[in-house]
Amino acid sequence: MSFIQKLKKSIAQNNSLLCLGLDPDLKKLPAGLSKSVDSILEFNRKIIEATNELVCAYKLNSAFYEALGTRGFEILKATIESIPKDIPIILDSKRGDINSSNEMYAKSAFIELGADAITVNPYLGVEPLKPFMEFEDKFIFVLVLSSNPGAFDFQYVKCEDKFLFQVVAEKFINLDNVGFVVGATRGEDIKLVREISNEKLFLIPGIGAQKGDLEVALKYGINKDKIALINVGRAIIYASSSLDFAQKAREKASEFKEKINKILAEL
Amino acid sequence: MSFIQKLKKSIAQNNSLLCLGLDPDLKKLPAGLSKSVDSILEFNRKIIEATNELVCAYKLNSAFYEALGTRGFEILKATIESIPKDIPIILDSKRGDINSSNEMYAKSAFIELGADAITVNPYLGVEPLKPFMEFEDKFIFVLVLSSNPGAFDFQYVKCEDKFLFQVVAEKFINLDNVGFVVGATRGEDIKLVREISNEKLFLIPGIGAQKGDLEVALKYGINKDKIALINVGRAIIYASSSLDFAQKAREKASEFKEKINKILAEL
Repeated sequence: MSFIQKLKKSIAQNNSLLCLGLDPDLKKLPAGLSKSVDSILEFNRKIIEATNELVCAYKLNSAFYEALGTRGFEILKATIESIPKDIPIILDSKRGDINSSNEMYAKSAFIELGADAITVNPYLGVEPLKPFMEFEDKFIFVLVLSSNPGAFDFQYVKCEDKFLFQVVAEKFINLDNVGFVVGATRGEDIKLVREISNEKLFLIPGIGAQKGDLEVALKYGINKDKIALINVGRAIIYASSSLDFAQKAREKASEFKEKINKILAEL
Repeated sequence: MSFIQKLKKSIAQNNSLLCLGLDPDLKKLPAGLSKSVDSILEFNRKIIEATNELVCAYKLNSAFYEALGTRGFEILKATIESIPKDIPIILDSKRGDINSSNEMYAKSAFIELGADAITVNPYLGVEPLKPFMEFEDKFIFVLVLSSNPGAFDFQYVKCEDKFLFQVVAEKFINLDNVGFVVGATRGEDIKLVREISNEKLFLIPGIGAQKGDLEVALKYGINKDKIALINVGRAIIYASSSLDFAQKAREKASEFKEKINKILAEL
């Protein structure tokens, strides 16, 4: 089954466009959990148990696991294995290197870790991303427009009559199993990317802690099938700093899911 | 001691600008070594033992370790620990994400793994790279101009009268502990980056297997202190596919070191 098929099934099954970001930080673990690296796995498993009927996908940011040292990669893998098989998993690692190195990153993400999709960086061009695309049942999200303030430095550089992020998006239009990362904080500029393709699936981070506008993100973010991945991380997983964290995460995930569906219904 | 101080010491001590890329691939391990993940560590240690008096730095491409699965991160760390303390270590992982994620990547590279420098991707701008720069004794190499064919897709996009890679390099001119990755295959275009700054340290991959021109790379690659990091990987570590691989790697490293010094003497 392709990533898109798997995603469409999970969207239908849970009636949700919410993608939950599992980016656990030792410093932010709820009181009552020991501040050990292994508590991260316990934390993740409880969050997954509490939320897997409310989300269409999980996104794991590899930075947060790599920061845990040698045990981090094991915890990342064990977390992925804890996710029900019918929910797609996005490894958010913004990888990007030359072709022969990307072969290795693809092997790591898709074979060793078992992720369904990965986020990648476009700076080295289209050609080196082929090793990821050769996995036909997998999917890549190309970082087009990021949610952070520094996005203006290069993504908004003017190249003739276009911004660089438009030039980047255009290069990937005709490639299958490729979607775009577009930050929710970029407001109306999401529209500029949507105008390039009515089909591409967008993964949209920046809702919640980064305060992106959900309504605008959905308005321009959904494709012709009316889907997009709305990622929320910290605002859900740290909804409570006590031992009721899983229950509170479930409530918060449910809130976001309903908020998204309400906006969708009015579009 | 800062990265630059450490590097200048190792350059002087070994009279070498050669940076050796330790990017081990299970499929290419010499005959006679078992094709197990742990052989990688044995392979690396023998290469390090044979070459550490001939190089000024080691560069480890994390892709090749991540492809080994959960044991890969341990082997990466153990390899780093096998490198003599006076030789600087560059983690070549092309990382780049928003600020809060880069904090985690910096922790992973500099604290957990103990690398002295890291390669980073500029697409998200200058601001999110601050967490790396806050480690004052460490160093980042910003990927400016890559060695692969796809580099033309975006790095050569024309922004008014400049190429994007020039715009990128200019943004980092006044930042300390920042150098540039500039591919040796880019020939005379390396000059365009050198013209932006006479001080920046360049890390130059693409010599050897990728067939970049060493003479041109050195001519424009060295800074006002007459230093640059000339990276060679596959052409040295796979110099022999038999059990004499360490000895052959030593000979090959020595050849490259001398070739570099000969060109330098004539510049």
